[in-house]
Amino acid sequence: MRISERSKKAPASPIRKLVPFAEEAVKKGKKIYYLNIGQPDIPTPSIYFQYEEKHRPQIVAYTHSAGLLPLREAFTKYYARFDIDVFPDEIIVTNGGSEAVLFAMTVVADPGDEILVLEPFYANYAGFAAQLGINLVPVRTRPEDGYQIPKMGDFLEKISHRTKAIIFSNPCNPTGAVYDEKQLEVIAEVALKRDLFVISDEVYREFTFDGFRAISMMSFSNISDKVIVVDSISKRYSACGARIGTFITKNKDIYQAAMKLAQARLCPAMTSQYGTIGLLTLDDLYYSQMRKEYEMRRDVVYEELQRIDGAVFKKPHGAFYISVKLPIDNSEDFVKFMLTEYEVEGKTTMVAPLSGFYVTPSTGMSEIRIAYVLEREQLRDAVAILTSGLKTYIERRNK
Amino acid sequence: MRISERSKKAPASPIRKLVPFAEEAVKKGKKIYYLNIGQPDIPTPSIYFQYEEKHRPQIVAYTHSAGLLPLREAFTKYYARFDIDVFPDEIIVTNGGSEAVLFAMTVVADPGDEILVLEPFYANYAGFAAQLGINLVPVRTRPEDGYQIPKMGDFLEKISHRTKAIIFSNPCNPTGAVYDEKQLEVIAEVALKRDLFVISDEVYREFTFDGFRAISMMSFSNISDKVIVVDSISKRYSACGARIGTFITKNKDIYQAAMKLAQARLCPAMTSQYGTIGLLTLDDLYYSQMRKEYEMRRDVVYEELQRIDGAVFKKPHGAFYISVKLPIDNSEDFVKFMLTEYEVEGKTTMVAPLSGFYVTPSTGMSEIRIAYVLEREQLRDAVAILTSGLKTYIERRNK
Repeated sequence: MRISERSKKAPASPIRKLVPFAEEAVKKGKKIYYLNIGQPDIPTPSIYFQYEEKHRPQIVAYTHSAGLLPLREAFTKYYARFDIDVFPDEIIVTNGGSEAVLFAMTVVADPGDEILVLEPFYANYAGFAAQLGINLVPVRTRPEDGYQIPKMGDFLEKISHRTKAIIFSNPCNPTGAVYDEKQLEVIAEVALKRDLFVISDEVYREFTFDGFRAISMMSFSNISDKVIVVDSISKRYSACGARIGTFITKNKDIYQAAMKLAQARLCPAMTSQYGTIGLLTLDDLYYSQMRKEYEMRRDVVYEELQRIDGAVFKKPHGAFYISVKLPIDNSEDFVKFMLTEYEVEGKTTMVAPLSGFYVTPSTGMSEIRIAYVLEREQLRDAVAILTSGLKTYIERRNK
Repeated sequence: MRISERSKKAPASPIRKLVPFAEEAVKKGKKIYYLNIGQPDIPTPSIYFQYEEKHRPQIVAYTHSAGLLPLREAFTKYYARFDIDVFPDEIIVTNGGSEAVLFAMTVVADPGDEILVLEPFYANYAGFAAQLGINLVPVRTRPEDGYQIPKMGDFLEKISHRTKAIIFSNPCNPTGAVYDEKQLEVIAEVALKRDLFVISDEVYREFTFDGFRAISMMSFSNISDKVIVVDSISKRYSACGARIGTFITKNKDIYQAAMKLAQARLCPAMTSQYGTIGLLTLDDLYYSQMRKEYEMRRDVVYEELQRIDGAVFKKPHGAFYISVKLPIDNSEDFVKFMLTEYEVEGKTTMVAPLSGFYVTPSTGMSEIRIAYVLEREQLRDAVAILTSGLKTYIERRNK
């Protein structure tokens, strides 16, 4: 009697596996700046709670498996602001963006099939693929050019007769890259040429700076029957714990297939759905304030990181992450060092080693991801501690 | 570009596919008694909402992937009342019992593997198995003996080298059967003999009548490393839309494997978790009142069904379902008839055809499932309409 092969293959979360070291540090009285996870520090807008209360039911009953119709209608309006034309019957409300990814992979690929992924990528893609017996095939992006989408040849050489789709996030977690139209056209072209589905993870849509804008794959009308958009309210409304995401497609077969999955799991949480209807009434002011706040934070981190000799990175234009190649061999070892051996006035900083965001073995070993989810003052201190810690780490390891 | 084979194989919900006929009937002004789905009509206890409010956070953040520790501690206490000894680190809080089933199947079986299932079974097992590329192999139970667990030989003859587990629910959805110790020992023996996991779905634990008690598979200490209990608060607290379930195991490997799945999807909805902590403070009075209410309803349905000539069924002792074999050839056709062609004073009754609860082709075609989720007065009227409708149906079809 053994556990399944697929559960052995499923990777442990690269972020969560370092948590025990953090817990140990806290026990010893250290203060940790957590720049390792994408949990925003901004309060959830109060309208979320107002709507929860306003719609308190007699019975917390099953909702429609695609989500409450008023919620899907509210999403339709929300997407229209980005010139994304989707109707309520093209949307399935999911248990977070996570479930939307799971649904997307399930409906496009069978066990043994392959999905191309822009690497480094959101680490949990690997977990979902393993559960489903799907092989992720990486297409590399690189810190030297700010992790931009590579040329078409890099995709084509990775495609086999088992390749079913391409998955990526834009703005990108973990790199913060925002892809322009020309880059996205490469993906659209590949999809068209090789008849692949495109799973576009757009959960950081609003998080773009320096005049950049996130372009949805929905806007490529020549591949509209091939596109599945994966989305989530978690980041934009600081409501990660609501677990509300969306699965969107104009392909009726794909929609119907995903609806069977949605029906089997019955529905997303009712209260969270009502709260989200409230969030979707927020106006541009909310988004522009949030964007401004994160842009200023990005500037702080970018500025502080300049002080590191030998660090390789470009200014990222989106999400709330920055990935950096450091002059070290093993960033996981460095993260452990920061938690167990280093402190400045009782404080230290935790970041995510980037190797867990790669599927190619022994890759990303020099890279880290910083999530700028703290206010500026703390952020400046956190990155300064990281920078001085790195210096000490390199000195000690070179001894 | 095609959808995956597994999504083609995934069955549409047998309950939901008849919904369009019901919608049409409602549009025409018919009143429908819905006895087709397991959505209780009893209000969710107000303590659910009190706890939601009491624990309103600043940020609706990710919780622990296994669920909030206070919630798991509350579950530990709840289970102790049934002499089920489980610790918080043996529990994973899931998005409803649905996700617990999905996790259980994923960690015990790979694509192409087999899981034995007591048939008829909770229809969504088939959906989850299809998504995961797992084959469900049925072990039949029969209306003639009240759908009891068959003898060991019936299991053994279905076991191959790819068989990994047995799944069943007790009390049983859809049949209402409650299995006694001797019957459950058959399953424990088979698991022991053939080294199989046992996935025990115990979501109707409190719904037992006539002095019957639901015995947890956790109480079979000789197979404690083989047991995964799947549970849900949906039915017992009339909180289906909260989407809170549990995955429970004493097998550390299985727990760790399931935790990787839990981490990939991050966490269950925070608000629902807090509400559930409230529900778990309810005392025996709540459960005994609920049990009494459902027992009286069961009696009403049982009594009314006696009037049907040629119906085959035994008095069920649990859940809130009764499955009945009717003197007809196609119960799906009969359900459609009730919705489209029949009414009494503008009213009709909707039940679930049982064929969708079987994986064996062309089986259960004469059977239906009745969910007694209405108060007695309405229930009596609903079943009377069903009975008279059946008479008319048989007359017309025999013409």
